[in-house]
Amino acid sequence: MTPENRWSCTGSQYLFQSRWYAVRQDTLISVDGRAITYTVVEHPGFVVIVPLLPDGRVVMERIYRHPLQRVNLECPSGGLDGEAPEIAARRELEEETGYRSGRLIGLGKYAASSGISDEEFSIFLATDVNADGVLRREITEDIEIELIPLADLRAMVLRGEIADAPSALAILLASEAVKSE
Amino acid sequence: MTPENRWSCTGSQYLFQSRWYAVRQDTLISVDGRAITYTVVEHPGFVVIVPLLPDGRVVMERIYRHPLQRVNLECPSGGLDGEAPEIAARRELEEETGYRSGRLIGLGKYAASSGISDEEFSIFLATDVNADGVLRREITEDIEIELIPLADLRAMVLRGEIADAPSALAILLASEAVKSE
Repeated sequence: MTPENRWSCTGSQYLFQSRWYAVRQDTLISVDGRAITYTVVEHPGFVVIVPLLPDGRVVMERIYRHPLQRVNLECPSGGLDGEAPEIAARRELEEETGYRSGRLIGLGKYAASSGISDEEFSIFLATDVNADGVLRREITEDIEIELIPLADLRAMVLRGEIADAPSALAILLASEAVKSE
Repeated sequence: MTPENRWSCTGSQYLFQSRWYAVRQDTLISVDGRAITYTVVEHPGFVVIVPLLPDGRVVMERIYRHPLQRVNLECPSGGLDGEAPEIAARRELEEETGYRSGRLIGLGKYAASSGISDEEFSIFLATDVNADGVLRREITEDIEIELIPLADLRAMVLRGEIADAPSALAILLASEAVKSE
C-alpha cells in the first residue's frame, strides 16, 4: 500500500480562489480503475493557541462566526499567512487578544475535515503570557475576550459545552500537557 | 449582543453545489457598517463513531484521504444524508466497517472549521459492538480496518500521532466517558 497519491489525477480546475482558501475540482482514477470527480477545499492551514496566564486562567474568545451564524467560545486562532506555525501563533495571539507569550509548546498538527479539505491546524500551549501586546484585529474579527480557568474549560469540554472542535481538542491536550509539566 | 445574524446579508450566490457540500458567497454588512464578501462552505454535517468492542479494542480505519493525499488513522465517520445523527452513526458504522452497535452514547456536537464552514459533526461512543453487520462501501471509501485498544489510542493522541482532529477529540472524549461509566 503506497500511502501517497493512491488515486491518479487526470485533471484539475479551480472553481474558486481567494486569499483565504480555494476550491479545486479533480478528476481522479481510483485504485480500482473508476473515474471520480472529487472537489477539494484548499486551505493554507491555521493555528490554535491555548494562552495560559500565570494564575491558571486561559485567554478565550467569544467570536462571531458568520458560517455558523452564532457566537462561539473558542481559543484564539488564525490562518497561516505563508509563515511557520510558531510565528503565526505569536502574531495571531497578539493581534487578536493583545496578549503575548514567552513560550510556545507544540501539541500536534491535525486535519480539520479530511473528507473534503486539506486544511490542517497546529495547536500550541502558550505559557509566560502577559497583556503587553497590541491589538490589531481584522474587519471580520468580532471578538470579546474572556478569561476562564483551564480546569473549568476542561470540565466544559467534557460536558459538551465547547462547540468548536479545534478549541475542544486544544483544551484537552493543554490540560494533559500542564499535568505532565 | 445578539448571538445570531450579527451581520446583515445583502446578497448570496452559489459558486458550487454538489451532493456532498456547496460553496456560497455572501455580501455582508458588518456590525460597524462595512461591506464584506464572505465565502462559506455549506456542509450537511457528519458523524464520528468510537466503536468499542467488549475486549476494549476500538474499530479504527486506515482511510485514504485524497484532499490530504495520505492515509489517515481515523474513527469511522460519514456524512449525514438528511437523517438524524444517531441513524447516520448506525448506518455508517455498519456500511464502512461491517460492525454493529447495540448502544450509542452522544458525546457532543462540534464545528469542524468555524472560520470558513458551517460543517458540524456529532461524536458517539458505540458499545455492545459486534461484527454481524454487512459492508457496503462507496467508491471513494478506500479503507482498511484495524482494532486498537482504547487506552493505546488515547496514548497515541497525547503523543500527537492521530493526525485527524475529529478522531483525536472523539478518542479523548470516549476515554473519559468510559472512565465515568
